[in-house]
Amino acid sequence: MRYEEYTIEGRNAVTEAFRSGKTIDKLYVLDGCHDGAVNTIKSLARKQDTIVNYVTKERLDQMSSTGKHQGVIAKAAAYEYAEVDDILRIAKDKAEAPFLFLLDEIEDPHNLGAIIRTANLCGAHGVIIPKRRAVGLTATVVKASAGAINYTPVAKVTNLTKTIDDLKEKGIWFVCADMDGEVMYRQNLTGPIGMVIGNEGSGVSRLVKEKCDYTASIPMKGDIDSLNASVAAGVLAYEIVRQRLSGK
Amino acid sequence: MRYEEYTIEGRNAVTEAFRSGKTIDKLYVLDGCHDGAVNTIKSLARKQDTIVNYVTKERLDQMSSTGKHQGVIAKAAAYEYAEVDDILRIAKDKAEAPFLFLLDEIEDPHNLGAIIRTANLCGAHGVIIPKRRAVGLTATVVKASAGAINYTPVAKVTNLTKTIDDLKEKGIWFVCADMDGEVMYRQNLTGPIGMVIGNEGSGVSRLVKEKCDYTASIPMKGDIDSLNASVAAGVLAYEIVRQRLSGK
Repeated sequence: MRYEEYTIEGRNAVTEAFRSGKTIDKLYVLDGCHDGAVNTIKSLARKQDTIVNYVTKERLDQMSSTGKHQGVIAKAAAYEYAEVDDILRIAKDKAEAPFLFLLDEIEDPHNLGAIIRTANLCGAHGVIIPKRRAVGLTATVVKASAGAINYTPVAKVTNLTKTIDDLKEKGIWFVCADMDGEVMYRQNLTGPIGMVIGNEGSGVSRLVKEKCDYTASIPMKGDIDSLNASVAAGVLAYEIVRQRLSGK
Repeated sequence: MRYEEYTIEGRNAVTEAFRSGKTIDKLYVLDGCHDGAVNTIKSLARKQDTIVNYVTKERLDQMSSTGKHQGVIAKAAAYEYAEVDDILRIAKDKAEAPFLFLLDEIEDPHNLGAIIRTANLCGAHGVIIPKRRAVGLTATVVKASAGAINYTPVAKVTNLTKTIDDLKEKGIWFVCADMDGEVMYRQNLTGPIGMVIGNEGSGVSRLVKEKCDYTASIPMKGDIDSLNASVAAGVLAYEIVRQRLSGK
């Protein structure tokens, strides 16, 4: 199995890739190009919530490895995303209360990789990321995960708040890391849980935060604003681990 | 005390450098860039009589060593490494038991920066790094520290084991993170403490490990070997914070 990001070039190849159901992370289209074949590709992209970038011919030429892109280049991860149900099944098979990571718009591939690595080691059953405004499973993510991506499933969802609603119906509670919350040591973080980590710059988005049952804060004594996102994820995840182990 | 010229790149890092009162010799800003964050930096520069140069993107790209300057690069004359005694004095002035980070050959500048950021936020009094076989305070480290380097002192020592011996005589205990140790939740990590984090690939070196009073392990349930070094540092540091807060 290969996990490197790869490039699909040309109108037929890109159309076929969409029709086969492959997850396309990003689509690059020549700006100003509106003919039938390109419009078909754009509408396929919309159906899959693929991000479409309009770029110059120079940019496409630069990205192209075949030199025959015909105005269209798609980027796909050669990694198969899991479904949220697959992640829940893993928890069930292990007879463990579900422990999920939900990442709200993590942008830095090193952070995403390090977080998947932490998810694997702290015993989380899987990682859920949104389709939009977030980094996908690129080669850098795969490398930063130190192999964890081969074991810990990653699901990509269209709407994180809807996914939270669905999972709440299955009895899962949600906690997000945010400075405004109650100190994490004083909260009960046991049971079936989804841990939400926000964007590097702006934190957890308002809509997602409103869906969370708890807001937990990591105690901060220092002069600057916030921990690195992957460090924050690790610190909160291990507080959950501690509480699970101590049966608090 | 050693002085090295250094470059600060990126909006947050430059803003924090100004706010901390550090002397910035020169500021380079992308010509034509007028958004809020950049205007804030320009007004901070005016208050400090820093020379502002408006330059092209090409010039910034050329000057940048991180590749992520976000249109702003500052040049500071020097970064001052602290002495170990300076760090101890800070703890004494705050009437707190010393809490030190010792990094045994951390090689990745992103990790070093993220660890200094964690040290600042968890209330550690300083970071000690060895002179040899370790990354120093490069522009990437400064950026990854998100400004923490302006507040948290970093001391560079010739011989980490000798420094540990000296600090032991002053009543400081040492704990290193290693898989062979007792689970961290079951150890008493209160009092004057030095936390040792090892190299990304090979962990804590034998000689340093032998000097440590405790070896603490982070519980691992997964399929891969180890956490990212900066995540491991964060997880262990916050277990120390938890025990300090609960007065365990």
